[in-house]
Amino acid sequence: MTMNVLGYAAASPAADLAPYRFDRRDPRPDDVVIDILYCGVCHSDLHTARNDWGWSSYPIVPGHEIIGRVREVGSAVTRFKAGDAVGVGCMVDSCRHCAPCEKGTEQYCAEGSTYTYGGVDRHDHRPTQGGYSEAIVVSDRFVLKVPESLDLKAAAPLLCAGITTWSPLRHWKAGKGSQVAITGLGGLGHMGLKLAKALGAEVTLFTRSGGKESDARRLGADRIVISTDPAQMAAVKSRFDLIIDTVPYVHDLNPYIPTLATDGTLALVGYLGGLEPALNTAPMVLGRKTVAGSLIGGIAETQEMLDFCGAHCIVSDVEVIRMQDINGAYERLLKSDVKYRFVIDMASLKG
Amino acid sequence: MTMNVLGYAAASPAADLAPYRFDRRDPRPDDVVIDILYCGVCHSDLHTARNDWGWSSYPIVPGHEIIGRVREVGSAVTRFKAGDAVGVGCMVDSCRHCAPCEKGTEQYCAEGSTYTYGGVDRHDHRPTQGGYSEAIVVSDRFVLKVPESLDLKAAAPLLCAGITTWSPLRHWKAGKGSQVAITGLGGLGHMGLKLAKALGAEVTLFTRSGGKESDARRLGADRIVISTDPAQMAAVKSRFDLIIDTVPYVHDLNPYIPTLATDGTLALVGYLGGLEPALNTAPMVLGRKTVAGSLIGGIAETQEMLDFCGAHCIVSDVEVIRMQDINGAYERLLKSDVKYRFVIDMASLKG
Repeated sequence: MTMNVLGYAAASPAADLAPYRFDRRDPRPDDVVIDILYCGVCHSDLHTARNDWGWSSYPIVPGHEIIGRVREVGSAVTRFKAGDAVGVGCMVDSCRHCAPCEKGTEQYCAEGSTYTYGGVDRHDHRPTQGGYSEAIVVSDRFVLKVPESLDLKAAAPLLCAGITTWSPLRHWKAGKGSQVAITGLGGLGHMGLKLAKALGAEVTLFTRSGGKESDARRLGADRIVISTDPAQMAAVKSRFDLIIDTVPYVHDLNPYIPTLATDGTLALVGYLGGLEPALNTAPMVLGRKTVAGSLIGGIAETQEMLDFCGAHCIVSDVEVIRMQDINGAYERLLKSDVKYRFVIDMASLKG
Repeated sequence: MTMNVLGYAAASPAADLAPYRFDRRDPRPDDVVIDILYCGVCHSDLHTARNDWGWSSYPIVPGHEIIGRVREVGSAVTRFKAGDAVGVGCMVDSCRHCAPCEKGTEQYCAEGSTYTYGGVDRHDHRPTQGGYSEAIVVSDRFVLKVPESLDLKAAAPLLCAGITTWSPLRHWKAGKGSQVAITGLGGLGHMGLKLAKALGAEVTLFTRSGGKESDARRLGADRIVISTDPAQMAAVKSRFDLIIDTVPYVHDLNPYIPTLATDGTLALVGYLGGLEPALNTAPMVLGRKTVAGSLIGGIAETQEMLDFCGAHCIVSDVEVIRMQDINGAYERLLKSDVKYRFVIDMASLKG
């Protein structure tokens, strides 16, 4: 018996998202069947729905910031039981045996991890469909436990925006005594501020425009630097051990490199493409400064982040919408008109 | 009593190097007076003589791969005595109290280290002059002990070419089990092969042209990859933990990034300038790959490298020239016509 579910899908790059019925697979022995309560809205959802990256196939159901409760589990599943609050992020599988997988960095799987939507299931070879839907079936290895202490709707964005900033913070060892800057104050950036602050770092927000001071401070920033003001940039010369750059479009990195300390790292998490204008290597060579990329995070690391958020009462700032409002939300997303993440209440699908 | 010495200087950007008499300072209590035996010829010497970087002042005496013997020491010097084989590299001083200096990375001194030539002495404010000369006076903290087991003329390039490749090998922890690639087979590249091999890494040479196979293998390469051959590049996909890129001119890094393993680093040591064509961040983000810069090395690290070379009988492959032949050597250097480093025999100054 396959499970027929209602979701919202894009039928083509130009189409609005609209109701779409499709089948979820029968649970395999290691599967967890999840009734979806909330799903966050990530920029990637929009990019994929509109085929901005050229790899979309249709119809496609986006959504990879999934929070729900377990409906039932396969015969081999011991870590989850019906009723548990759980989460699913950007991946639902990986090869599980390559060097990155062995190290718990499934996001860098040598054979390619299976994305939650727009991927292909490694067993039945059917396309994966995401969290803008009533339910999902996911192998237990890729299901996260969500602390019951958290507001579940506001926890949804932790599964992508949260882990995407958490992973570089941990990899580059941000904590007490370290100087961290976050570039960009959107879905990712606001989580970066919260998480870096909770980890004990001194936190700076780089932003191109003013007027974000009080919000940034509330979210965890100790300092706001207007990145277009050369005097403000000069005042933070050689300061940062880590800059997490969440800006999702092409932008000039050259003003930021001199603000890195020796051995400091600028980690790009939001932009895939060419660095223009040309990145100048001189300050990198003369100060052993680094430009790196970072992609979401591994499953164990995601659980670590959720547990940390549970212990520190950290969730995302969200605006809850109905599933029916998704197309308008995408338009607002394009204008950065959200503080700071849309989350779809899946109960709306029924109403 | 100041010491008048003979050297070779450029009087202007367009002038050939020619004999030049100038004064070395009276030794201060912490100074070591060194009779120079050999001085390696670095690309930077030529760039500085010709003001390619725009910071030269004239007349200028190049040379920062200096090997000599101690003539005398200041009253406070205890680590050196007359007759000791010693070396001086690219720096002769630094602020000694900033965070990078405290960590032994004087090359990243926050106030700027004092370069061996083209710098300004921090005490008497006179211009520093380099190793194309009979003698030099250097604070003991910036003088290296050279193992007597080494062929002194061939040890000279260790002071710049050696440490410039050693430092990233050590910083990014190359050793047994690691995969290291060296890009470019010149003065730096040939030292990179030797040092990486001696550290126990599996070593690959990236080169644009064939015909270097036997030489590269003799120097330590386990594998040669023609970087302009897409099939050869594809065969080393995701292989390298560290690529040390010694190429001194603008070049496309994009073909190399996919050859890095997850968490791998491409360290630029030879090129200061814009990365054109644009560096594409996609493989960096999707594989947590890093582009970094690295500059020479600290003083303690340089001593470590010299001691390692002493223990492993590692020196540079050199072509010894007379001081009078320097201008012709520069012309050959511009054509990469040297295997692999010119070293000036300073005895020629007397003949």
